[in-house]
Amino acid sequence: MPKVDLNSDLGESFGRYTLGMDDRILPVISSANVACGFHASDPVVMAKTVALAKQSGVAVGAHPGYPDLMGFGRRNMVVSAEEAKDYILYQLGALDAFLRAQGMRMQHVKPHGAFYNMAGKDYALAKAICEGIKAYDPSLIVLALSGGELLHAAEDLGLRAVPEVFADRAYEEDGSLVNRSKPGAMITDEDEAIARVVRMVTEGKVQTITGKDIPITAGSIGVHGDGEKAVLFPTRIREALTGRGVDIVPLSEL
Amino acid sequence: MPKVDLNSDLGESFGRYTLGMDDRILPVISSANVACGFHASDPVVMAKTVALAKQSGVAVGAHPGYPDLMGFGRRNMVVSAEEAKDYILYQLGALDAFLRAQGMRMQHVKPHGAFYNMAGKDYALAKAICEGIKAYDPSLIVLALSGGELLHAAEDLGLRAVPEVFADRAYEEDGSLVNRSKPGAMITDEDEAIARVVRMVTEGKVQTITGKDIPITAGSIGVHGDGEKAVLFPTRIREALTGRGVDIVPLSEL
Amino acid sequence: MPKVDLNSDLGESFGRYTLGMDDRILPVISSANVACGFHASDPVVMAKTVALAKQSGVAVGAHPGYPDLMGFGRRNMVVSAEEAKDYILYQLGALDAFLRAQGMRMQHVKPHGAFYNMAGKDYALAKAICEGIKAYDPSLIVLALSGGELLHAAEDLGLRAVPEVFADRAYEEDGSLVNRSKPGAMITDEDEAIARVVRMVTEGKVQTITGKDIPITAGSIGVHGDGEKAVLFPTRIREALTGRGVDIVPLSEL
Amino acid sequence: MPKVDLNSDLGESFGRYTLGMDDRILPVISSANVACGFHASDPVVMAKTVALAKQSGVAVGAHPGYPDLMGFGRRNMVVSAEEAKDYILYQLGALDAFLRAQGMRMQHVKPHGAFYNMAGKDYALAKAICEGIKAYDPSLIVLALSGGELLHAAEDLGLRAVPEVFADRAYEEDGSLVNRSKPGAMITDEDEAIARVVRMVTEGKVQTITGKDIPITAGSIGVHGDGEKAVLFPTRIREALTGRGVDIVPLSEL
Repeated sequence: MPKVDLNSDLGESFGRYTLGMDDRILPVISSANVACGFHASDPVVMAKTVALAKQSGVAVGAHPGYPDLMGFGRRNMVVSAEEAKDYILYQLGALDAFLRAQGMRMQHVKPHGAFYNMAGKDYALAKAICEGIKAYDPSLIVLALSGGELLHAAEDLGLRAVPEVFADRAYEEDGSLVNRSKPGAMITDEDEAIARVVRMVTEGKVQTITGKDIPITAGSIGVHGDGEKAVLFPTRIREALTGRGVDIVPLSEL
Repeated sequence: MPKVDLNSDLGESFGRYTLGMDDRILPVISSANVACGFHASDPVVMAKTVALAKQSGVAVGAHPGYPDLMGFGRRNMVVSAEEAKDYILYQLGALDAFLRAQGMRMQHVKPHGAFYNMAGKDYALAKAICEGIKAYDPSLIVLALSGGELLHAAEDLGLRAVPEVFADRAYEEDGSLVNRSKPGAMITDEDEAIARVVRMVTEGKVQTITGKDIPITAGSIGVHGDGEKAVLFPTRIREALTGRGVDIVPLSEL
Repeated sequence: MPKVDLNSDLGESFGRYTLGMDDRILPVISSANVACGFHASDPVVMAKTVALAKQSGVAVGAHPGYPDLMGFGRRNMVVSAEEAKDYILYQLGALDAFLRAQGMRMQHVKPHGAFYNMAGKDYALAKAICEGIKAYDPSLIVLALSGGELLHAAEDLGLRAVPEVFADRAYEEDGSLVNRSKPGAMITDEDEAIARVVRMVTEGKVQTITGKDIPITAGSIGVHGDGEKAVLFPTRIREALTGRGVDIVPLSEL
Repeated sequence: MPKVDLNSDLGESFGRYTLGMDDRILPVISSANVACGFHASDPVVMAKTVALAKQSGVAVGAHPGYPDLMGFGRRNMVVSAEEAKDYILYQLGALDAFLRAQGMRMQHVKPHGAFYNMAGKDYALAKAICEGIKAYDPSLIVLALSGGELLHAAEDLGLRAVPEVFADRAYEEDGSLVNRSKPGAMITDEDEAIARVVRMVTEGKVQTITGKDIPITAGSIGVHGDGEKAVLFPTRIREALTGRGVDIVPLSEL
């Protein structure tokens, strides 16, 4: 029976500020990427988020970002390999403290925002990130863009890496995501997006923006829980997959 | 043979800013309290500090502070018990990542500055701090002001606690430190200060500001490494103690 | 004809985080207290908030807070007089830049949260705050708790001060607010709260928690715009006042 | 008589951390670029720095940076034009508050570190910065890399711009700085560096790395005051220039 993971970013509130509908998206997903206090979150939010994930039986991974709270970690920053590695170590350890306090184990790591995007294209940065992960715990799974440099670096370092795909994004013939600035980059029709995800998971294929079929490995599908409507879409994806006999399981059970 | 630990705060640099003479004080001490990024330090500084302590064979503990970089964690802040516990967890985990990467184990926890001072007087705060420590790792040693509330809370929670004394501070009859605003609060004569420390360690007694002898337990002596002269004083303390047959050992070997 | 100001806190969003319904509360109030980046807000939010206030014809004041984004400036912090004065100067200047860019003038200053509360009780802190305000622009109006130390310090320094009252809080016989922990501290009945505000403004009197009438000066009424319901209550206050012939005017027109 | 300005970065301490020898470099320079709290400094440091500059009779400008205290504003960050403009406004206003409190006027603006470097190469970013400066005060002088985009954008917007040159850097034939990674990029011989500066100021020429003479306009020379030795070099530059009859004057008197 085919299996796939559904992952979403969680615990992105900060102090007085609330973001996301964590309690709504948790029943839909199998793995949660929990913010670690650099681009979002704070210790109290992290404690609550980890406790909430435990209640829901959802596996938890770290979602480390750039030290840019004002920009929510979405702005490209040029950091050295040493900085990247140490930012990973710091954030992994910080989140892990709350997992330990709950008797849980960290399952995976998915860098956030600009850290994820830059690591997908820059092998040196990706390698530094993976060195941090490996130094912390070599059994951690790296969740990385299908076909990107982070995936390659993780595999080169002997880490287990799971490729992530997106329901609402178009693909180039080389398997990379079509740049958002290009027409057709976003799949706006929900039914089409769902059909594409189902095909990626069950057939291992996706039609590129040029109309050609290419092979693709969908280990995990990234979904969002930012609003009322956003939760409906992941729910539909989940139902479509389970309806076709696909098992939704956490990364560690793939 | 009597034993005592010598501890000092380490790794308090930040980004472009250098503070302290870590390489100079390390040969003198047996335990280092390493800043965790709230009141001082950053991930790169933490990585370097832990590596330096490893080279010197000095045991490492966490030195968590209030989230007040601008005030170096020295300003009283009123945080809730939940915040205090989660700030401890976050900072312990963050530092521990660098210890894991070096194959080391965290030995102890000593809160920093206003966090230490307020916890010495406020049992509820002290208890929240100790709950964070216990949730992280119940085998950690709590380094706390001799006779203060943090020491009591640690013992109440079943944690091992070691009382800290100071060479340059006068004591009240109840064993508390004389408030710095009072005349005679600081022992300014180095020879007198050293003689007092030796007596606390070897006889378990100290003469209070009123002239009376009281019993005191000196598990660890807190020293500073802020300047050229500051390193000389801890060196003299070390020499005076070893000259009297006192063993300088890390907290875990007391 | 009696006059009163209605003030509310504005521009408390930060980066990716949205807080408050600024566009909804602006039509109700006459003066806006705009956050300055310490306890909330960032430069982009400040620019937008000032532009929005200009569109609505609402007078703008600074709402400086403690440097505690994680605690939203609501936690007591012990800062020196020098720090308090310089924090005021920094934040007043920062906000004023956006007013200058819009061709507007700053009308007033109201410290935020714990800064406001501590200054209401601590004359030395209140004086330091007022020295910062005076050094920046001695024509600024200080909006301060009716009967509190900030009001006294402002008057002592020759600054114009306007006393603020609250619709939903009970008063002691000495004119201070009943501590929130006491029963009866909050006026939960909306009709009663509105009747009390109308009486404070039109008669200059309020019935204390002990049942006695005391004189009170209501220069401005502080209201909140945090939620759908919260906007309705200030709207009712405004209608009740204007229905009794009270003019709602900005602080500078009192 | 030829004139030139000598400028240096000032007030880069933060909280407990001291950086630079501001009191030593002030007698040497005519214009000071004062940090504004984003990449370095805090309100207390700013107040002290402005007071110190006033005592020394040195003109003060703003030295706004990226919001990256951990990286000291030296790391490239991709911010939007709106963010760049608003970061400038915020920091100019914040610094100006301390100048107002001292009865001084802001003379100029020089972006810091990566903000300066990126603006030298990216016209859109440079324009956004200049729009912020112009919106704040169109009489401010922009201190910008000789021949760079910030200089062009300032002139296009009708702001007065002064080109900055460096004593210790080699130049390409197009007047740009030789990339630091190339051999010969730094002029390491002090005598040669001083001779080059004197020639740039008195003859308006510099020999490029290829050996060709090109025209160059030296409105201001950037010097550093980071260490004992660093202060000696600017002093030698100053003496060499005044010895050739060059007047050292602040930017506003060029």
